[in-house]
Parts: sequence; C-alpha cells; structure tokens
Amino acid sequence: MSGGKRRAVVLLSGGLDSATALAIALRSGFEAHALTLLYGQRHAIEAERAAKIAAMAGAHEHRTVRIDLSFASGSALTDATMELPKNRSDSQISGAIPPTYVPARNTIFLSLALAWAEALEARDIFIGVNAVDYSGYPDCRPEFIASFEHLAALATKAGLQGARFNLRAPLLGMTKAEIIGKAVELGVDLASTLSCYDPDRTGRPCGSCDSCLLRARGFREAGMADPALE
Amino acid sequence: MSGGKRRAVVLLSGGLDSATALAIALRSGFEAHALTLLYGQRHAIEAERAAKIAAMAGAHEHRTVRIDLSFASGSALTDATMELPKNRSDSQISGAIPPTYVPARNTIFLSLALAWAEALEARDIFIGVNAVDYSGYPDCRPEFIASFEHLAALATKAGLQGARFNLRAPLLGMTKAEIIGKAVELGVDLASTLSCYDPDRTGRPCGSCDSCLLRARGFREAGMADPALE
Repeated sequence: MSGGKRRAVVLLSGGLDSATALAIALRSGFEAHALTLLYGQRHAIEAERAAKIAAMAGAHEHRTVRIDLSFASGSALTDATMELPKNRSDSQISGAIPPTYVPARNTIFLSLALAWAEALEARDIFIGVNAVDYSGYPDCRPEFIASFEHLAALATKAGLQGARFNLRAPLLGMTKAEIIGKAVELGVDLASTLSCYDPDRTGRPCGSCDSCLLRARGFREAGMADPALE
Repeated sequence: MSGGKRRAVVLLSGGLDSATALAIALRSGFEAHALTLLYGQRHAIEAERAAKIAAMAGAHEHRTVRIDLSFASGSALTDATMELPKNRSDSQISGAIPPTYVPARNTIFLSLALAWAEALEARDIFIGVNAVDYSGYPDCRPEFIASFEHLAALATKAGLQGARFNLRAPLLGMTKAEIIGKAVELGVDLASTLSCYDPDRTGRPCGSCDSCLLRARGFREAGMADPALE
C-alpha cells in the first residue's frame, strides 16, 4: 500500500444508513473506497445518489458494479411483477422477513467488497446494516457479520498469509433515530440520501413503503424534519 | 418445490473439474441447475463449453451470469496486462499462490450460487474445487468450504427458518487423475471440457499454462489420452 491513510472499502447504496457508515469510516481516518452495486433493483436512482454522497463526503473513489440478480429472483425489490408492501404497520414491518428480502444479498455484496479490499490491500470493510429497527433480514444480524469475517480470512490469499479482515458494521446496534443523530453529527448530506424502495424517476420517495415508513419514524423520534422531503 | 427430484445448484465453468462435479450431482439423483459466471476472464469461451456440457449431461437448466470483476483486479486471469505463467515446473505450480488467483472468487461464486439455491428452494450446491493437485488457492481448501456452509445458514431466510445448505465439493480430496477416472466412469464429455487459461478463439488450449500442464499430467497418470486434444 502506498503510505498514509489506511484504506477501507465502504458499501454505499445511497441510503441513509450506508451514507452514515461512510461518514464514520472517514471520521475514523480511513481512505474510503466506496462501492455501489446495481443489481436490478427497482430503485436504481440510488446509485446516482451514492455517487453524489461519495463525492460530497470526500471518499477517495467510488465504483459502481453491475450484476443482474434477477436470476435469483423472489424479491419484490428486483421482480417488477411482485407487489411492494405499502402502508404497513410497525408490527407488520418488524414481524417477519419482508418480501423485499433479496436472497443472499449481503453475502454477495460483502464478497465483492472483500475482493476489492484484497486488491486494494485494504483490511477494513464497512457495511451499514442495522439489526434494531429492522430485524427481519437474516443477513443484517451480528452473527452473520461475525461469520463473514471468519470466512474472509479463509477465503483470501491475504488471509492465508496472515492478514485479518475487519468487517465493520457500526450501525448494527443503533436505532434509526440514533443513526440520524450520528449522520447529523458527522455532516452527512441527508437531503441526498434516498431510502425509498419505490421512488419516482426524479428520486422522490413514495412515502409508504417499509423503508420510507421506518425513515419517517426515525426522523420523528430524532425530533427533526427529513431534509430529503423539503 | 414441485415434486420429484431434489434440486441442486452446480457451479459450472466449462472445465474438467466442474463438468465432473455436475455429473456427480446428476448421478446422485439431483435436478441440476448449472450456473456459469462470466467475470471478465481471458477464457470466456469456457462459457460456451459450459452450455454444451450442461446440455449433453442432462442438466435441468443452465444460466450464465455476467459480473465484471476487473474492478478487483490483480489476477492474470482478468487483467490482460498481466503475464500468464507458462511452462512452469510441478514445484513452481504447487509452490505458492499463483498469479491467476482472483481475489475472493469462490466466495463470490458461492454467494451467487447460494442466492439461486435459495430462490429455487434447493439445499445443495456443488462446486468442483480440488485441494490436492493445486493447493495454492485459499478458497479451494476444506476449511473454506466448511466456513461458507456455516455462513449460508446464517445468511439466508431459509437458514433463519431452519434449513441447512449442503456445500458439496466431491472432488476436494481427489487427484487430477482420479477426477479424470471419475469423469470417464460417469460419461463426461471430456472432449468439450476446456481447462486452459489462455485458449485461442476456437477454444484450442495453449498447452503451457498451469492448468494445461496439470491436466496433461492428470491424463498421463490416468494412462489415457486427452480427448480434447484429438
């Protein structure tokens, strides 16, 4: 590695959580290499927002990688024929794995981040998963993160040579309101973040999908207005 | 799942090993869903061979998925500016991790296979990795396979609901000569398999890359001519 800052790969979707994870990586002193995956999701406009967020935050670079995951369909996020749930109650949202679950999505994302990290000689990977407000996704749990970290050492040339990869999920134990507070503290460009599963072409959020509802509740609990809605 | 055979996802590169793994899956009674990843490798003609092998063997279906891994470069397989090692000795080939190592490649492949398996309600994933003749790759070791199997249960909705994924690496402990013997026994269309890292456009192997040399040694030890060279 060329001298200076330690490098980190940061998975950046363009949503509020990953933008905050990026800000935490930068504040922690890492040279951030941001990675956005375009996987055929309905909300591809997130990638444009991700590029903007990466630039505004001061990421060292931002890459967008395309992989069409529709072959492993079964998610309302990638299958346009499935209905996205709208206007669900809190208990409905947190009650079961939602239809927006994309099979093995975070495993795929982390494996690509790991590949890039190894190529960059980075040893740290940031992911903005969160297990508190939205515990339905299996691949957002601490035990999943720990298991991938274990795998990463076995899966790589760097690991074979003694390196250890640190999988950093700084939002894992935070509520959405706490994440928003941290984002504000770190100067995240919240107005550019897009959490909605079903925005219009201009990036205006629908206001009624699970992700919009959770975000709205977070801002309510944080006692502030959502700058993206102004 | 619709009644009848159990489904399995089989990673199929078009090489000798994965063709044999496919034949083992079929002989074991699985309905085989073959998956080929086109990741920007030099030898993309393997994908055509994979389609042919899948059809000849009787796979239920074959999908090819593209993902450009050149962003995580550092491998002579995906970076045309790097030199592929040629005419290396046995000790050179087995002595260290070769420059053809693609960062986290099998982790990426298995994560995509896992996604498809979950979507198909398959619980078995076949991969033709082999730790005996070519132990240089970290992600061909038994401990890597075991670690991914552990991860798969944590990473998925199916796993959360109690399912376990079986990661099957039936060639793990076999020599190349033993794999060839098994391939012959199972009627694998060896003439269509392509192991070469650097074939010409028609799919003719170079004869001097590590993969060609290992294959040639395997056929020598198995006491037969390579049908792909006839």
